[in-house]
Amino acid sequence: MNFFTRANAQIFTQPILKIDLNKLVENYKTLCEIIAPATPSAVLKDDAYGLGAVEVAKALYEIAECRNFWVAHALEGARIAEVAPDANIFVLQGIGADSWDLFNEYQLIPVIASPEMLAYWKKNPVKDVEPVIQVETGLNRLGFRPAELKKLSKADLKIFGMVMSHLACADEKDHFMNAHQLENFKLVREKYFPDLPASLSASDGAFLGEDFCCDMVRLGAAMYGINTAPYRLNQMQNVITVEAPVLQIADLPKGDFVGYSATYRAAQNRKIAIVSIGYGDGMPRALSNVGKVFFKQKDKTYEARIIGRVSMDNIICDVTDVPTLKVGDFGALIFDEYTLDDIARDAGTISYEIVSRLGKNTRFNRQYIRK
Amino acid sequence: MNFFTRANAQIFTQPILKIDLNKLVENYKTLCEIIAPATPSAVLKDDAYGLGAVEVAKALYEIAECRNFWVAHALEGARIAEVAPDANIFVLQGIGADSWDLFNEYQLIPVIASPEMLAYWKKNPVKDVEPVIQVETGLNRLGFRPAELKKLSKADLKIFGMVMSHLACADEKDHFMNAHQLENFKLVREKYFPDLPASLSASDGAFLGEDFCCDMVRLGAAMYGINTAPYRLNQMQNVITVEAPVLQIADLPKGDFVGYSATYRAAQNRKIAIVSIGYGDGMPRALSNVGKVFFKQKDKTYEARIIGRVSMDNIICDVTDVPTLKVGDFGALIFDEYTLDDIARDAGTISYEIVSRLGKNTRFNRQYIRK
Repeated sequence: MNFFTRANAQIFTQPILKIDLNKLVENYKTLCEIIAPATPSAVLKDDAYGLGAVEVAKALYEIAECRNFWVAHALEGARIAEVAPDANIFVLQGIGADSWDLFNEYQLIPVIASPEMLAYWKKNPVKDVEPVIQVETGLNRLGFRPAELKKLSKADLKIFGMVMSHLACADEKDHFMNAHQLENFKLVREKYFPDLPASLSASDGAFLGEDFCCDMVRLGAAMYGINTAPYRLNQMQNVITVEAPVLQIADLPKGDFVGYSATYRAAQNRKIAIVSIGYGDGMPRALSNVGKVFFKQKDKTYEARIIGRVSMDNIICDVTDVPTLKVGDFGALIFDEYTLDDIARDAGTISYEIVSRLGKNTRFNRQYIRK
Repeated sequence: MNFFTRANAQIFTQPILKIDLNKLVENYKTLCEIIAPATPSAVLKDDAYGLGAVEVAKALYEIAECRNFWVAHALEGARIAEVAPDANIFVLQGIGADSWDLFNEYQLIPVIASPEMLAYWKKNPVKDVEPVIQVETGLNRLGFRPAELKKLSKADLKIFGMVMSHLACADEKDHFMNAHQLENFKLVREKYFPDLPASLSASDGAFLGEDFCCDMVRLGAAMYGINTAPYRLNQMQNVITVEAPVLQIADLPKGDFVGYSATYRAAQNRKIAIVSIGYGDGMPRALSNVGKVFFKQKDKTYEARIIGRVSMDNIICDVTDVPTLKVGDFGALIFDEYTLDDIARDAGTISYEIVSRLGKNTRFNRQYIRK
């Protein structure tokens, strides 16, 4: 029941999302080699970029012996702690009144990025937990600014177990910001945290060389198959496949319009297929009149252009040139030959947003592949 | 703990999604008056456009005595059947081998849109269920085409309990497609289904007059507060509020860059706030350098422009002109004065896609308001 095999005159209605945990773990291991001797860690925030943090955490913990995880929110960390009991779980958005209980219960490690949050921590510390301090080096997002670091007391500086920052332009190898941020980070480390382990890079920074890897690298997007070093061919394997069944095949007469607001008009007679997936399943509406559905017949892959607007539950594509297509066949929306990076390019966004959105939809028949 | 009240020197990290079921039910009742004497029905597909189909179904069933619901997939229908046991639940994507069991267990009503699905139904009918037939009138999506209707036998025509179609351009009052589709639908009804109840319009068609309402109107988007008749002021009330806490406030020196790929550069010294919400929570990345966050101080609402790219967990906004803002205060991303329609306009898409995506994210503190 996938787009390589014929549905054998059956009717199906539900789209399928396959997540290959074996390939995800292989990507992680490849990244571990690239960053060695730095310590690897896995970024599972946003429910593992939508792919299911619990399943991903279990695979990394059990197969790859990963013991360091990053999440954004405490409630994400709590779910992972249940399946990775002795791991370090770092929480990037930090700690507050709405999450302290979870930090305490699961011994989560907050990343503290502002004087206000540090003040909160000093009033409400969690026993046996050493927080991470985030310092700002150029992204101008979360992190202590130089003037704020200056005001920290000697006792304050001893609170932390690690120092981290985050790169703004690490997917562009020669961007001036990379060297600028690395230099800022070095200065802060030398001045305030000479004895602390340090983490600067996520999986885009992993490809920038040893200086950027420091003591720990936070491996996220690349592990999920995204090319975070787009200046060269992707070394990662595709992890996800999205397929959906053809509900109907119809003739589209010359001059007819297709879809909401009639944004497509047939210049010639065409054949169309209505495929059972839409933006309600996380396929961006920006693919309207732009995206593609792929069909395989007898070892040949055919590309069918999306025509008209993507609607909530359906996509319409032009299958005039696809031979012997039948109702019940599956089309592929994302697969090894048209990956997250490809669909993101067509939708005018980044792969991260596509995958983060996709995996949260509950109408998929969701299948995890794991040996 | 909302953007109207100060956080009182606390630290928070979790965004909040409030869904006002009272207003949703009021919108439904307003729509019922507009379409009378047609029978109302509620469209809860895609998990009630992301807002939670079970909660929404319960409110409509218990408060407004709604007994007709539409979903896209059988698994969505099954969840609603649990809380609305004697309601009619219509399944728009129809029935197939991957959903037959659910139809049988919950007595769901399939919408059959193709000869192939009708053949499947005739081999695999569900006892005591009369399916709906969908006919194609101009959208060129799902539905029997004229040539396919011609081939139906007299026995085939008697299988169905209702006939439906769907409008392509009903949000444009004077679009030629509206009259064209209405005429096509009338001809099909007269010729093939003179005795069946009929449904043509969703909540955009509800505003086009009595002819378009037929026997049953499918009320969806408008019920959720979306203006489906944008040629006039919205008669619906806003149903959802999204708020997120300020994690950090910082000076942004003149010449500094903000966010990934350094897409914003400060032309003057600015003050910025980092707000704990991002595209991982369903705020479209298309809001980068375009969207807004709102802060209320002393009864005045301040608009803070999003600067730099929206990232997975955070949004950065320019709060130079917001007085007395503190870490722990909440900003509003969607509220009564900046609704789904407004944020969709800024993000270059439709309100449907915003809400469908937003509600599926699990990091929200999700609050239902219901008397």
